[in-house]
This record gives sequence, C-alpha cells and structure tokens, in this order.
Amino acid sequence: MEKIESIIKELKELNIDLYNKDWLRTWDMTQEQIEGTAKIALALEALYKENIDCRVFQNGSLGVSQFRDNSTRTRFSFASAAALLGLQVQDFDDTKSQAAHGETVREGANMISFLTECIGIRDDKFVGEGHEFQVETAEAVQEGFDAGVLHQRPSIVNLQCDQDHPTQAMCDLLHFAKTYGGLDKLKGKKIAMTWAYSPAYGKPLSVPQSIIALMTRFGMDVHLAHPEGYDLLPETIEVAKKHAEESGGKFTVSHSMDEAFKDADIVYPKSWLGYNFAVERTELLRKGGKDFQEKLDELEKRLLEGNKKHIDWECTEERMKLCAPDAQWCHCLPCDTTGLNCEHGEVDIPTFEKFRVNSWNEAGNKPWAIAAMILATRFKDPAATLEKIVERDAKRRLD
Amino acid sequence: MEKIESIIKELKELNIDLYNKDWLRTWDMTQEQIEGTAKIALALEALYKENIDCRVFQNGSLGVSQFRDNSTRTRFSFASAAALLGLQVQDFDDTKSQAAHGETVREGANMISFLTECIGIRDDKFVGEGHEFQVETAEAVQEGFDAGVLHQRPSIVNLQCDQDHPTQAMCDLLHFAKTYGGLDKLKGKKIAMTWAYSPAYGKPLSVPQSIIALMTRFGMDVHLAHPEGYDLLPETIEVAKKHAEESGGKFTVSHSMDEAFKDADIVYPKSWLGYNFAVERTELLRKGGKDFQEKLDELEKRLLEGNKKHIDWECTEERMKLCAPDAQWCHCLPCDTTGLNCEHGEVDIPTFEKFRVNSWNEAGNKPWAIAAMILATRFKDPAATLEKIVERDAKRRLD
Amino acid sequence: MEKIESIIKELKELNIDLYNKDWLRTWDMTQEQIEGTAKIALALEALYKENIDCRVFQNGSLGVSQFRDNSTRTRFSFASAAALLGLQVQDFDDTKSQAAHGETVREGANMISFLTECIGIRDDKFVGEGHEFQVETAEAVQEGFDAGVLHQRPSIVNLQCDQDHPTQAMCDLLHFAKTYGGLDKLKGKKIAMTWAYSPAYGKPLSVPQSIIALMTRFGMDVHLAHPEGYDLLPETIEVAKKHAEESGGKFTVSHSMDEAFKDADIVYPKSWLGYNFAVERTELLRKGGKDFQEKLDELEKRLLEGNKKHIDWECTEERMKLCAPDAQWCHCLPCDTTGLNCEHGEVDIPTFEKFRVNSWNEAGNKPWAIAAMILATRFKDPAATLEKIVERDAKRRLD
Repeated sequence: MEKIESIIKELKELNIDLYNKDWLRTWDMTQEQIEGTAKIALALEALYKENIDCRVFQNGSLGVSQFRDNSTRTRFSFASAAALLGLQVQDFDDTKSQAAHGETVREGANMISFLTECIGIRDDKFVGEGHEFQVETAEAVQEGFDAGVLHQRPSIVNLQCDQDHPTQAMCDLLHFAKTYGGLDKLKGKKIAMTWAYSPAYGKPLSVPQSIIALMTRFGMDVHLAHPEGYDLLPETIEVAKKHAEESGGKFTVSHSMDEAFKDADIVYPKSWLGYNFAVERTELLRKGGKDFQEKLDELEKRLLEGNKKHIDWECTEERMKLCAPDAQWCHCLPCDTTGLNCEHGEVDIPTFEKFRVNSWNEAGNKPWAIAAMILATRFKDPAATLEKIVERDAKRRLD
Repeated sequence: MEKIESIIKELKELNIDLYNKDWLRTWDMTQEQIEGTAKIALALEALYKENIDCRVFQNGSLGVSQFRDNSTRTRFSFASAAALLGLQVQDFDDTKSQAAHGETVREGANMISFLTECIGIRDDKFVGEGHEFQVETAEAVQEGFDAGVLHQRPSIVNLQCDQDHPTQAMCDLLHFAKTYGGLDKLKGKKIAMTWAYSPAYGKPLSVPQSIIALMTRFGMDVHLAHPEGYDLLPETIEVAKKHAEESGGKFTVSHSMDEAFKDADIVYPKSWLGYNFAVERTELLRKGGKDFQEKLDELEKRLLEGNKKHIDWECTEERMKLCAPDAQWCHCLPCDTTGLNCEHGEVDIPTFEKFRVNSWNEAGNKPWAIAAMILATRFKDPAATLEKIVERDAKRRLD
Repeated sequence: MEKIESIIKELKELNIDLYNKDWLRTWDMTQEQIEGTAKIALALEALYKENIDCRVFQNGSLGVSQFRDNSTRTRFSFASAAALLGLQVQDFDDTKSQAAHGETVREGANMISFLTECIGIRDDKFVGEGHEFQVETAEAVQEGFDAGVLHQRPSIVNLQCDQDHPTQAMCDLLHFAKTYGGLDKLKGKKIAMTWAYSPAYGKPLSVPQSIIALMTRFGMDVHLAHPEGYDLLPETIEVAKKHAEESGGKFTVSHSMDEAFKDADIVYPKSWLGYNFAVERTELLRKGGKDFQEKLDELEKRLLEGNKKHIDWECTEERMKLCAPDAQWCHCLPCDTTGLNCEHGEVDIPTFEKFRVNSWNEAGNKPWAIAAMILATRFKDPAATLEKIVERDAKRRLD
C-alpha cells in the first residue's frame, strides 16, 4: 500500500486535466497527461494485486467497444479495463454500415451513449480515416452532451487508428518504466524500432508510429529503420523529430537493421505496410469499380514480391549480439516466428523463446493502460478518486 | 430529490399490478399500468441524474435480449436499462433455428431462464408472428415457473413485434409529457402520424400502430394519414378508435398529409409497408418454393413503383407551416433525409436540422422506459422499491 | 438456512483441494472432489433461493467462454454461473483461427487472462482434440501465472470435450441425488445409458461417456446399450469398469435396448456417432484434399443408411413398461421426439410429455454445477467462502 500512496502523491503534483475529454493520440497530450495516465495505470495494477475493488462506476454503466477491425488482445484488454472499473461491456458492431460517416456517425454515437461512460474505438484499416472517425464520434457526443441529450459525456478511447496506437505505446512505456526503474530512467536508452519481414505484408503502421512518437518524449535514443519504400506517415516523423529535440533525446532514420540494433537496449522489429502502399490500397478500396479486384491482386503481387527482397530483415540471435548487453526484444504480438508459425518471419526461435515471457509481461500492461485512460477522462480529480478507492478498502474477492 | 419523492407519492396511488407479468402491448395494459410505467421511468431518470445507484438486482442475474431482427438503438437501450438495474446482458441468437416454434420455443425459453429476470424480444419481421412468439415464450416460462423449474418468473418485454412497439411509444409518450408539462397536458394536442416516402419501402408497421393506439388514450387528437393502400393492421385501427372514444380524444384517418399537418402540435412522418403488402410478403416468405425469388423480386418491383408515386409525401419546411406554432417534428430514428442520406426521403434538411436534437431527446427516453418495464414486472411494489433505492442512497459513481 | 449450514458442515469434512487447478474430466477427480463440487452446487442453489447475493468476485473480473462448437444451453448456464459469482462474461471466438494449436494457444490463453478468473471451453468436434486443447490451455495459463505474467491463475472448466461432458454429468448427478434423497442413495439404482435413433447421426459421444464414467462411481448399476458399431471411446469403457469395481457397482455393455431397460430406475436414451465413425470423420476433416467433400458425402450416406437399420431403438411408452416402477426418462436436451420435431426419433410423445418437466429440472442443475466448479477451483477453502457469503447476508434483490 505504500507504493500506491506514493503514486497517488506523485499524481497530485500533475495537472492531468482530461476530464470529459478523449484519449486519442499521445502527441495531442501534454507530458503531464502522459505521465499522469501512466501513474494511474500503475496505481490500478497495484490496487488489484492488493485485492482491492477498483469499481468507480457502481451502476453497471456501459463501456462500449467498437471494433471496425478484428482484435483479440485489445478487445480483451478493453473488456478487462471496463470490468475493473465497474462498466458493463457492450460491443457496437457497425461493420454492416461501411460508409458510416456524417449523419450516421453523429446520430449513432449519441444513440449508444445514453448511459455510456466510454467508447473504445479501433479503426485502423484506411489511411486518413481512422483518426477522423474518432474525432467525428467525439464531436458527436460532445454535441449531445452540450445539448443535454446525454447525461454524461462519454470519453472516446483510441484502441488503434491509422495514425496512433496509444494503448499499445502506453503499455510499452509502462513496460520500459518497470524494466529500467521508472519513467525518468528512460533517458538515453536506445530503442530500435525496425521493420521486419513477414509473409503477411499488410500490417498497420500505427504501432511503429506510436512508438517513435511517444518514446522520443522521454529522451530515448529512437532509431527507426526500414527498407526503402517502407516509410511511415510523414507527420509522425515530424512529431518524433520535434519530441526528440524538446526532450534532449535522439531520433534517427536509417535503412539498416544492423545500424539500428547497434548498442540498442530495446529492439522492436515488426512488419508493416509502407505508407505509400497504404495510400495506394486505400485509394483502390475507396474507388472500387469494375477492375477493382484485378488491381488489388496486382498490388498484392507487387507488395509480396517487394517484401521478399527483404527477407533478411529478421531479428536473429546473431543480430541481437549487436545490441547492448541485457538488451530486450519487444513486440506488440502476435508475431511471426521463423520456423514456428511461418517459414520466414520477424524473429528466430531462440530470440523469441528467450523473450517470450518478457513479451507477455509487456502485453500485460494494456488493461491497466486502458483503465487509466478511462479513469483519467471520466473523473475530475483522478488522484482523489484513487484515494477514495483506497479508503473504501472493499475487497475484490471474498477470500 | 423532491421531484423523485413526488413521483413516488403519485406512484403509490396507482394500481400497477404487473408483478410476474409481461410488458407486451400497450393496449393490454390498464391506464394505471401505462401511467405507472411512465412514472417509474421518470423516477429512474431522476435518480440517475442525482448519481444514485439504481441496481435492484444485486447478483448479476441475467437480462436476455433476443433480437430476431437487426437493431442498434433498441439493443443499446435494453442493455443500458438492464445494466442500470444490475442485470448482466446476454444475447440469445436463435436466428439459425428459423422455425423456432412449438417445442423448440417452449424448451429454449426455459433453458435460458434459470437465472434470468427478463427477456427482451424483438420479432417484427412477419405479420401475424411476432406477438405470437412473445406470447408463446411468456407461456413457456410461466409453465417452467409454475412447475418449480425456474426459481423466478422472467418477464417478457416487447422490444418490437408485428403489432406494437411499446418501448418506442412509451419513449415518445415520455417525450410529449416532458414537452408539454405532464401526461395530463396531452389532452387535445394534435399529433399527425403520417406515412412518408422513403427509398426503403419495407419498414415495419409497428411504430405507427403503437402511436395511434397509445396517444389516443391520452385524449390527443390523433390524425393518421397515408396514401391509399398503405393501411395499418385493422385491429390497431379499432383499438385507436375505441381509445379515442373512451378518453374524449379524437382519431381521424385520411389520405392527405396536409390535412394531417393542419394545426398539428406534433408531426411524426415516417415510411412503412402497407398492411396488405406485408401480408403478401409474409405469405411469399412462408411458402418458399421454386419461383420464390422471382415472385419476391416482382413484389419488390411493384412496391418500389407504387412508392414512387408518393414521393411528395415529405415533411418539408413549407409543409411545417401548416402546423400550429411551436409544432415539433418527431421520428423514431434513423430517418431518411432528402439530400443527406438519400435523394428523396421522409424529411427535408431544414426541418431535420431544426429538430435533430429534439429527436435525440425523444430517443433518450427509451432506456428509462425499458428499465421501468423491467422494474414494474419484476417487483411487487415498484413504489416501495424506488423508496428503498432512495433510502439506500448508494452512489452511482465514486465522485 | 439450516440446509445451507448442514451442507457447509459436510463440505468441511471433505478434502477438495482444487484451488488454482482445473475442472476437466470427472475421472481425474477424487471422490471427495466430485462430492465436494456437488455439495457446493447445492449450497449455491439454496443461497440463491434464499435471496442471498453470491458474488465472490466483487470487481467484475472476467469469466471467458470459448465455444468452439455451437451451444445455447451450456452457453447460458456458464453465463448464469459466472454472473452468480460476480464475473463478467466475455466470449472468446477463435473459430477463425482453426488450427489454433501450439504457440497460438499458448499465447492466446495468456492474452485473454490478465484479469480473468475462469475460462470455460467447449471443444468437442474432433476425436483426440478437445481434451488436448483444454490441457494445452491450462498449461499455458499455468506458465503465465508461474512467470508472474498473470496476477491470478484462471481455472479451465470443461464445457464439453471429445471425452467428457462433466457439467452435464454433474448436473445429472445432482438431479439423481435430488430424486432419490442424496448421493448416498444412488447405490444399486439401475441406469440404462442407451443409444437411440435420431435423423441427426453425428451427435457427440461425450454425454454417454460422461454418464458411464461418473455414475459407476456411486455404486450404480450402469447398463450401456447400443447397436453394434456404435462403440464409445475405449478408454472410457475401461474407466467405467474400474469405477464399478471400486464402488461395488455394476457396469454392463449389451446390444439390446430392452435388456438395458429391464428394471431400470433411470433410462437415458440418446443418439451418438459411433467411435470408429468419429475417428474416420476426424481423419477425413484433418486430411482435407481434393476429393474431401466427395468422401465426406460418402461417409454421411453410409452413416445415414446404417442408422436407419436401428430405427427401432426408440424410447416408447411400451418399452418404459420394462423398467422398474417410478422409472424416469432423462435426456441432456434438446432431444428428437417422434412426431414432434422429427418423423422418427429418440423418444415417443407420451414418454416425452410425461417427463418433460422432469428433464427441464434435470437441466436446471447445470448453472449451479458450473458455478460450483468455478468456486471450487478459484477459492482455497470453499466451505469458508460459503460461510462468508452466509455471514455477509447481502440480498440478491432489493425486495
């Protein structure tokens, strides 16, 4: 309990100021909002371990999850986070109304929100759309709240968009803070955010974008490496540069996996679809038309052929020797492991096996990160709310 | 809290008598049952606003929702209502067993009810079936309860059938009561329940039927207007006539939208499939056979062509001028707005925009209406139960 | 409440020892574990009837249900059990990743378990797979728990595998105990577990296997009867023999329904696919290939033709006369009733109607059986936990 009290004390020093707002992109957040959210996550995890009931919603209000793309990990993390805080989870499946924009979004968002405290949204399929959709939803519930239609203003939590994947990045940040002894211990640590080969060529760009944008804020030495043509969204590169400058960190982009791994404390090798290809695919999908499938097949063929040229972008035991001693392999999971679930993949078996449990621990931060985002956006004074949880001292299990 | 206490006081005067019964059609209810349910809804909403925990089921018993037709609004309203009262929502998807009648229904209803307090059912696809299915389910759980198989008798709540849509009508009733200052202020108000053109020709008849049947009870001047051939279920016309007579209200049927709008306080223009067509379609679907699709296509073509002749049945800014001053446009949502989500629709943009928030407020009553139906059917003395909620004074949020 | 206290007293005498373990197959359990689980089920049912809140998880932790085959009855029983104990149910649908073995299972099991207390799994489609999958999942969460990834060790509850259907068998055991006045009153009672004809030829073997394995432990006279070729999994026959020897019961296998019915106290006639056919079908499905569908059609044709030869394996009013007086018909439901939902089925209408409510009562034990399995595996001292529920004396409903 000492640990919890010390976290709450630290929280009181921070101006979190997220009440009735949303948790969309880390780069829209102040440093205090980021750190505050991280600390709330740590406090909730500690309370759970102490068998303390953390329900702050005591009426089974709804936590709505809207997955516009498949998900297991994030789905269960959101459900766990919602349950932890006392929300009942309801899935909102709007996949049938593909072109859900404009009036449909505005109205739909309000119709599901009469007793809703939070809407978690994953919408990462199309470049230029996911973030926009979340903003549109947030504006819709704001309008409903301002007009008195909604008795509370549900917060929108970004469970992955085309630009950012903040629940993943925050979960990784928590993992690094635990590994190295605190958020203030990350300064100077080198992280290699690198592309890696995978037979599945179309993975989202939001993970690498979220990592370079967030880790640069903590003074880390962030090295982004990918083959030519596998660029990220240009805006996120600008964000990373600016953050590195402000924090006294470093941000490098190269086309060499080895250079990135050199003396790295953390390597994060994963596959993604290059930005230009993502744009091309999005345009194809949007345009449709007669020869649509033909063109999509042609693009896929081109992508797979291009991909194959970079089969050597693999995280191997050998390559890990380039890193600093005690370097760790990280991944958002699930990953493609050579010889385990594919012929050639992002990582070899020895590396994967060595860090398998580490990567599970990494993932284990996600429920707390999401719960923290909900609590931060739904309560005026999160430190005071946590104090009330401690004071109430209700038990989580009837042991 | 004064407001709540005054509602509870009024409730005590009413003989609600719905314990261990169902909430199926408004016209099976006494006036006191209707008013009682409305007042419970208002009390629950007021308690929620006061941050009071309204859970009356304190063991996570189940609230089962059985949607035999798609739904977003009603689905979330039911989930919200169930959560508000402390029930855990479970969806029962029996769509695979299309011909779920007889033994299947009798057994299935009991098998999902061992710890269930309420089953909400939407079954509005086929004329002559939806209500029957709900009655069958109610009889099945009654048998299980009487035989001691079920430890409690789950109540069936009609979330829309082929005849009535009571959660919508009650939600509208609450909206009118709020607009005009009370249920007793509705007498003499004119409501135009009119057909309107929509490119989607097959919308259910239950909404207009539920409106004419319920609003006539409150002494309203109900004007039903539709093109020739777009009749409602004859029995509901009889119900509306009888109610108007009994309440001193008025019930008129015409084939003129303008006549209906003349001096109206409320207009409710929406598309529906004419009763005869609904019967024809149901018979086609039931019969199946070789040339089934051909016949269905032929019917659809005929319906669309017929529909097009009435493209002028639109609620326009111009037409609204026929109404009384301060007249309001209502809709069960989602609606088809000309130039917004279709080329020609039920309403024009200026009218839609003017009353958009009003229509959201209208919809916002649905969770409270459903929660009231559950509470009224599951507790012997709803006024006493509400009093206990007030006395307990548990907080909904840990603020 | 006296009844509850007496059950708790009996429970204290038993060494249940299931904490942080799984509930997979009855034959892996000691007699005390079986009896202990049964008594917990009876205690929970009694508490529910007394309007006592039974939530032992007070933080909305997750109860995950993973149905790799369709289910209504067991799905709702699991949901009810989870809700009763305070868990929020989340479905884990992994049907898309058909070949979910190896790494996928190991990782997936941990990823859904960060705040999960229990995972209920149905996986009964393929001989030799279902139980293995459950063991694999259990080992995965054990590894995660040992490594500190999971803060609690979710228990796996078998909701039907290829070998056993313990929630059904335990539910039947409870039914028999209630019918005859206690678990100690089953000795010598004859149960006829017989095959019966059904137009659906492919029903799982787990129910008959679970019945012969469990009921032989209680000294019952278990008579298994089926046409030639409709064998059960050989291992389960061995288990039944051994149990009968140990308990002083009896285990007979014959090919005569009449012989089985002779003087039986309980008859349990139901259809299943013979073991050899199940193996053949599994191999076909696993192998796939070009002529796969052709071969499957051929097998199906052969099975249906073979089945038809045994159309006289029906539980009829006439045949029931062979039984002891007061004999009862049991079934796991849903069943195929001649002239009701099929032309020729497992049972005739008079027998079905006579015992319909009895079979519903039989099924009604399932939620309590599942809840008991969860409580037994998640709490160190279930008797003490039940005592705390009694002492807390919180009400289930605000009556």
